[in-house]
Amino acid sequence: MAQAQRITPRAQDFSEWYNDVIMQAELADYSPVRGCMVIRPLGYRIWELMQRALDDMFAATGHRNAYFPVFIPMSFLAKEAEHVEGFAKEVALVTHTRLKATGKTGAGAVAVDPSSALDEPLVVRPTSETIIYAMFAKWIQSYRDLPLLLNQWCNVVRWELRTRLFLRTTEFLWQEGHTAHATEGEAEAEARLILGIYRNFAEEWMAMPVLTGVKTDSEKFAGALRTYAMEALMQDNKGLQAGTTHNLGQNFAKAFEVKYQTAAGALEHVWNTSWGVSTRLVGGLIMTHSDDNGLIAPPKLAPVQAVIVPIWKTDQERSQVSGVGDQVKAALSKAGIRVELDLRDNLKPGAKYFEWEAKGVPLRLEIGPRDVAAGQVVAARRTGGKSPMRLEGIVAAAPAALQEIQAGLFATAKQRREEHSLRGATKQQFLEFMKGSGGFAYAGFCGGGECEAAIKAATGATIRVLPDPEFRSPEAPKTCLWCDEPSVAEAVWAQAY
Amino acid sequence: MAQAQRITPRAQDFSEWYNDVIMQAELADYSPVRGCMVIRPLGYRIWELMQRALDDMFAATGHRNAYFPVFIPMSFLAKEAEHVEGFAKEVALVTHTRLKATGKTGAGAVAVDPSSALDEPLVVRPTSETIIYAMFAKWIQSYRDLPLLLNQWCNVVRWELRTRLFLRTTEFLWQEGHTAHATEGEAEAEARLILGIYRNFAEEWMAMPVLTGVKTDSEKFAGALRTYAMEALMQDNKGLQAGTTHNLGQNFAKAFEVKYQTAAGALEHVWNTSWGVSTRLVGGLIMTHSDDNGLIAPPKLAPVQAVIVPIWKTDQERSQVSGVGDQVKAALSKAGIRVELDLRDNLKPGAKYFEWEAKGVPLRLEIGPRDVAAGQVVAARRTGGKSPMRLEGIVAAAPAALQEIQAGLFATAKQRREEHSLRGATKQQFLEFMKGSGGFAYAGFCGGGECEAAIKAATGATIRVLPDPEFRSPEAPKTCLWCDEPSVAEAVWAQAY
Repeated sequence: MAQAQRITPRAQDFSEWYNDVIMQAELADYSPVRGCMVIRPLGYRIWELMQRALDDMFAATGHRNAYFPVFIPMSFLAKEAEHVEGFAKEVALVTHTRLKATGKTGAGAVAVDPSSALDEPLVVRPTSETIIYAMFAKWIQSYRDLPLLLNQWCNVVRWELRTRLFLRTTEFLWQEGHTAHATEGEAEAEARLILGIYRNFAEEWMAMPVLTGVKTDSEKFAGALRTYAMEALMQDNKGLQAGTTHNLGQNFAKAFEVKYQTAAGALEHVWNTSWGVSTRLVGGLIMTHSDDNGLIAPPKLAPVQAVIVPIWKTDQERSQVSGVGDQVKAALSKAGIRVELDLRDNLKPGAKYFEWEAKGVPLRLEIGPRDVAAGQVVAARRTGGKSPMRLEGIVAAAPAALQEIQAGLFATAKQRREEHSLRGATKQQFLEFMKGSGGFAYAGFCGGGECEAAIKAATGATIRVLPDPEFRSPEAPKTCLWCDEPSVAEAVWAQAY
Repeated sequence: MAQAQRITPRAQDFSEWYNDVIMQAELADYSPVRGCMVIRPLGYRIWELMQRALDDMFAATGHRNAYFPVFIPMSFLAKEAEHVEGFAKEVALVTHTRLKATGKTGAGAVAVDPSSALDEPLVVRPTSETIIYAMFAKWIQSYRDLPLLLNQWCNVVRWELRTRLFLRTTEFLWQEGHTAHATEGEAEAEARLILGIYRNFAEEWMAMPVLTGVKTDSEKFAGALRTYAMEALMQDNKGLQAGTTHNLGQNFAKAFEVKYQTAAGALEHVWNTSWGVSTRLVGGLIMTHSDDNGLIAPPKLAPVQAVIVPIWKTDQERSQVSGVGDQVKAALSKAGIRVELDLRDNLKPGAKYFEWEAKGVPLRLEIGPRDVAAGQVVAARRTGGKSPMRLEGIVAAAPAALQEIQAGLFATAKQRREEHSLRGATKQQFLEFMKGSGGFAYAGFCGGGECEAAIKAATGATIRVLPDPEFRSPEAPKTCLWCDEPSVAEAVWAQAY
C-alpha cells in the first residue's frame, strides 16, 4: 500500500505526529465525507479488542445488549429541555426519502425529490436517551421489572465543525448503557459501578492511568443530574475525557413517563443512568504510549502481540529459519498469543522492523541462522531493549515479556502524568503552568461558574473533574485559585481535547 | 414484563403467529420510528451468536473487519447508473444539520434550521459499495495490494413502505463484505467461496436447509454482474432470500477508478465482489423452526441452551432441589453450555415452562425432590419428548441431547422443504401448486424476462435461483414451464418474502 514515510517528531508538532502515526500504522483514514473517518483493519481490531473486554465486564455485572433505532423523531429530542439545547446545533437531520433523476448523467444524475419530504424530520442519533426511555415506558410496569440494565454498541452522529481522527469525528462508534432503577441510591451506585469498570479497563487494558471524579455543572451531560468522568493526560500534557457516566435522576423518566408500581402499590418514576465510551479511546491509547517511530500498542489490546521476523541470505537459510519461525508461531499461538510470521520475500528485515514498529507490535522475535544454531531468538521490545530468548521455554518467556511491557507502559504513563501534575499552586504559578508545559493542576474552587469561565478565558483550561477522594491532595485547598473565596472542592484543571 | 398471552396458531394466521412469537419471546418490539424495530436482548443475543460464528469463518478465510462512514455523498451513489436506479426510491436523505428553537415548549420546541442546509445532501448508507470503492481507489496501487478482503458489521437504511419485524425493516443490521481482486476468475471464486460459507452457516448453525444458485437479471443486485443467493423455505411455504453474494465485475472499479499496476507494469481495473447477510436471518430462524408454543432456537444459536427448573413445595425441598440445581448449572456451564437456573419464587413451575418454551430454550431440566432421590433430572426437549437423565454423566448427556435436537431440527426442516418441492410440473400443475400450498417449484425456463413477469403476475411466484448442480433435478427440463420454448436452465420458483 502507501510507501513508508517519516513520522513528524512529537517535539516538532504533536498534532502532525498524531496524524502521521495513524496514517503510517494504517489505523484510519480520512473519508470523502466531511468529518467522517474510515477505520482501517488495524484500528478496527483495536476497537474490537476493546469491545470484547468491556462487553465481558458489562455482562458480568448483569447488563444485556440490545439495539435501538438510529433515527429519533425530532419531537422526542425536544421533550427534555436541557437535552435538546445541548444537541440542537450538531444534529444530522433526515428530511426526505427519495432521489429523482435530473436528466444528467454521472455524479449529477440525481437530486432530492421534494415530494418525498417527511412530515416529521428524523435526527440521526447523537445519543439515545430519548428513544430508549420511550421504550422503557412500554416495558416497565412493576418493581419486578427493575433494575433494567441495557447496553448498545452502535454508531452516533454529532455534527462537529473541527474534527480529528478518533478524537472528534462527525460519526463515531461507541457503547451507550441505559439503565432504570427503583431508587436514586441504586442509580447513583450504578453510575459509580460503571465508572469503576471504565477506570479498570483504562488502567488494566489500555495501560492508561486516569483520574475519576464528578463534573461541574458547566461540563455535565445535557439532561443529567450529575456526570462522572475519567480523565487521562496525553503526552502533550492535554487532558482527554475518556469516558463518562451520568446519573440522570428522574429527568428523562418524567419527560417520557417511565413509571413503575412499587411493592406497596404506589406509582413512581424510575431513576435512570446512562454511560458511554467511544472510539475516542483509540486516540487516547495512541497519544498515551506511542513514540516518534509510530504506534506503541499495549499488549492486551495489540492486534498483533508478537511478530516473528526470520533473517536469511540463502534459500537454505530461508528454509531453516522459516521452519523454526513456523514452530515458534504455532507454539505461541497455542499459548494464546496473537502472533504473525513475516515471510515476505520482497522486503529486507530492516524494512520489516520499520513497518512493525510503526504498527505498534510490542514484541519482535528475530531468527537468524546463528540464532537457530544457538537455540534462541532475539527478542526486541517495542518499548526498547533487545535480548536473546531461549527457544526452549519461549511459551512462558514471551507472555512474561508482554506482561512486563504492559506493566512498564502503565508505570511510564503514570510517572509522566505525575511529573506534569501541579498541586497547591498560587494563581501566578497556575498561569505559568498553563502557559508553559501544561498538565493537571489541582487547586481550590469556590464553586462559581464565573471563576471557571474566567480561567478558561485566560488559560484555555477547564475543570476536568472534582476528583474522587483517592486522587485528592493530602491537604484540602482552603481558597479558590482564582477569587480567593473559600474553596468548596478541590478541582483538577487542564487544557483538554 | 408483559403478561403471557396466547400465540395465534400458525394454521390460523401465519403472519400473526410470527409477530406473536417475536413479541411473546421478547425478541424485538415496534419502535416509535416508522419501519424501525427495537431488537431486545434475547433477539440481539441470537444476532451476536450469528455474528460470532460468521466472523470466525470470514477471518479464517483471510477477511478483516473495518468501518466506513454511515453517510454517502449523493453524487457517489449516482456514479454507477444501475446502482442509483436500484436505490433511488428508498434512501434516507440528510439535508440539514441544526435545529432552532420555535419559542414553544415540549415536543414542538424545535424545528429544522433552514440556514443549516448542506451543499450536497448525504444518503444514509443503503449499502456501501460506492464509499468503500472510493477508498479502495486510494489504497490499491499494485498487484501486491490484492486481493483486498474487507468486511464491515453495521446498520443500513432502506426506506421500506411495508415493513415486518426482522424480515424487512427500514433500518437493519448486517455485514457487508467488499473485496478487490486482480482477475475476474478470483472475484468469481470469492463470490462462490462466501456463498459456501453462508450455506454452511445456514445449515450447520441455523439448522436451516438452503438452495444455492444464481439469480436471474431481474433479481440481481443493482450494479452487479451476477448475484448468487441462498434461499430457504419457511413453514408457510414461502421462500426467503437468506444471503447474497455478488460478482460486481469491473462496474464499480470503472465508476470509482480503482486500478492496479500488474506485475508486468500495465494498469488495470480491479474486479470486485460484495456480499451480505442481515438480521433477516433471525426472521428465517424463527419461521423455520418455531411452533404454536413460541420460538424454537437451534441449540448452536440459542442464547439459553438449557434451563434448570427446580420443583418444590416446602422450604426444605427448595433448599434441596436448588442445591442440586446449582451443581448441575455449574457442571454444564463448565462444559460450555449456556445454562440458566430458574429459582424465581413468584412463579409456579408450569408458568416457568410456558415462558421458557416461548423463549425457545431447547432443553429443560426439571428437578423435583423425587428426582434428587433417584439421582436424575427430567429432561424435556423443546422439540418434544421427556425422559430421565442421570445426574452422573449429565455433562455428556446434555450436550448429546442438544446435538440431537440440532440435527433433528435440520432433518425436519429439510424433509418439510422436500415435501413442498414440486419437480417437473406441467403449467397446470404449477398453477395449482402456487394457488394451493405453494413451495419450491423446479421447472424449465426459456431465459426470457417476459415469462418471468407473466408468471409473477399470474401466481406471485418469482425465480428464487437457477440452482447449482447439486440441487438440480436428475433430468434437465427440456422446455420452459410457461412458453414451451426450449429451456436454457432449470429454475426454482416460489412466492417469497
